[in-house]
Amino acid sequence: MEEKEISQAVISRLPRYFRYLGELKERGIERISSQELSDIMKVTASQIRQDFNNFGGFGQQGYGYNVEYLYDEISKILGIDQMHQLIIIGVGNLGQALTNYTNFNRRGFVFKGAFDCNPELYGMKIRGVEVRPTEEIENFVRTNNIDIAVLTIPKDQAVPMAQRLVDCGIKAIWNFAHVDLDVPENVQVENVHLSDSLMKLSYNITRYEKKHGRTGNGKTGS
Amino acid sequence: MEEKEISQAVISRLPRYFRYLGELKERGIERISSQELSDIMKVTASQIRQDFNNFGGFGQQGYGYNVEYLYDEISKILGIDQMHQLIIIGVGNLGQALTNYTNFNRRGFVFKGAFDCNPELYGMKIRGVEVRPTEEIENFVRTNNIDIAVLTIPKDQAVPMAQRLVDCGIKAIWNFAHVDLDVPENVQVENVHLSDSLMKLSYNITRYEKKHGRTGNGKTGS
Repeated sequence: MEEKEISQAVISRLPRYFRYLGELKERGIERISSQELSDIMKVTASQIRQDFNNFGGFGQQGYGYNVEYLYDEISKILGIDQMHQLIIIGVGNLGQALTNYTNFNRRGFVFKGAFDCNPELYGMKIRGVEVRPTEEIENFVRTNNIDIAVLTIPKDQAVPMAQRLVDCGIKAIWNFAHVDLDVPENVQVENVHLSDSLMKLSYNITRYEKKHGRTGNGKTGS
Repeated sequence: MEEKEISQAVISRLPRYFRYLGELKERGIERISSQELSDIMKVTASQIRQDFNNFGGFGQQGYGYNVEYLYDEISKILGIDQMHQLIIIGVGNLGQALTNYTNFNRRGFVFKGAFDCNPELYGMKIRGVEVRPTEEIENFVRTNNIDIAVLTIPKDQAVPMAQRLVDCGIKAIWNFAHVDLDVPENVQVENVHLSDSLMKLSYNITRYEKKHGRTGNGKTGS
C-alpha cells in the first residue's frame, strides 16, 4: 500500500464503513457493489470508490467488493486488528460509562486502569478495573504499556494532566475535557467536545426554523 | 445577514470560536485581531476571516474584532441565545452523566425529563429531573414543548424510538446510539459515535507508528 497522506475527512468516514461492513458480515452477505453500499450508507458510489482508492481500491469493482476482505482490510487500516491498552482519568458518571462499554472491549480497546483524585473512590471496581490515586498514573502507564489515556476530568485539570501523560510516554489522548490540548506531534489527540456537538445541533434547529418559519414544538408540513 | 447556505465544516468550527471568545471575555479582553485569534486558536488568520465572512464579517478588521460583540453574534447564530428544552432517553451511566452536566444548563440547554424502560429507575431523580417510563414520552414532548431528545439507548432500540420522536414532533435528536437514524429533513440529528472517535484515534496511532517506526510504549526522539 502506498504511504501517501490520507485526509482526516477520509479517515473520519472509515469507522462508518467498518460499521456497515460488520453488519453486512453478520447478515451473511459475502459480496457487495459500490452502488449497493451507496444505497444503504447514503453516500454516493463515487465517494465510496474515491475513499477506497486511497487504500489501493480493495479489488474488483465489476464483481463488487468481498465484504469480509474489505472488513478485515479496514480493520487493519484503523489499527483495530491490534489490542490497545487504556486508562481512564476521572471516574465520574462519564468515566464510568466509558469504562463500562463492552463494545470498546470487543474492538480490542481494553481498560487497564482507572484514576481519580477523590480518595473515597480508591479501591472501587468498574468492570474489574480498580480506581487508583492519580499520583500512580506515571508508574502505571510505564509498567503496563498503556497506549491511550481517556480524560474525563474538568478542563482546568486536563491541561497539566496532558503534560504529565506526554512526559511519561503516552501515545494518545482521548479528550472529553472542554479544552484544546497542546501536545507534541508524537502524541495523538482525539477530542469529544460534547458542548460543541450540542451547539451544532442548536445551530441546525435555528437554521431550519429561519428557513421554514417554524416555531414552537410541532410537525411542519414540509 | 444573507441567507446563503453555510457549509457544515464552517458550522463545526463555530462552537470553538465561541469557546475561545468566551475565555477572552472572561479575561476582560475587549478587542482582538484575526492574527491574535489565529495565534491562540492555531488556525490561520485567513481561515478565520473566511469563516466570519460567511456571516457578514463581524466588523472592522483594521482595529480587530470587538470580543463581546463577536461572542454575542456567534451565540445568536448558534441559537444558544435561546433556551432549549431537552429530554434524555436511557438513564444509564452516560445518560446520567449528560443530565448532570451543569455546563449544558448554563448554555440554555435544560433537561426537563428523563425516560427509561427499567421500572426500578422510575421516580429516581437526577439533578431534580424525575425518571419516567418511556410510554410517557409522546405526551411529555407535546405538553412540555421539548425541542431536543438525547438518545443514550442501545442501537436496536434507537431506530424505533427515533420514529416515535419524529411522530410526536421533536425538532432534534442528539444521538449517542451507534447507528445512523433515518429521519425527515425537518428533524435535525447530531451523532456522537464514540466508537468511531476511538477508531480514528487508533488509526492515527497506527499511522504515526508506521511512519516513524515507533513500537511499544515510550517517547520517541522525533
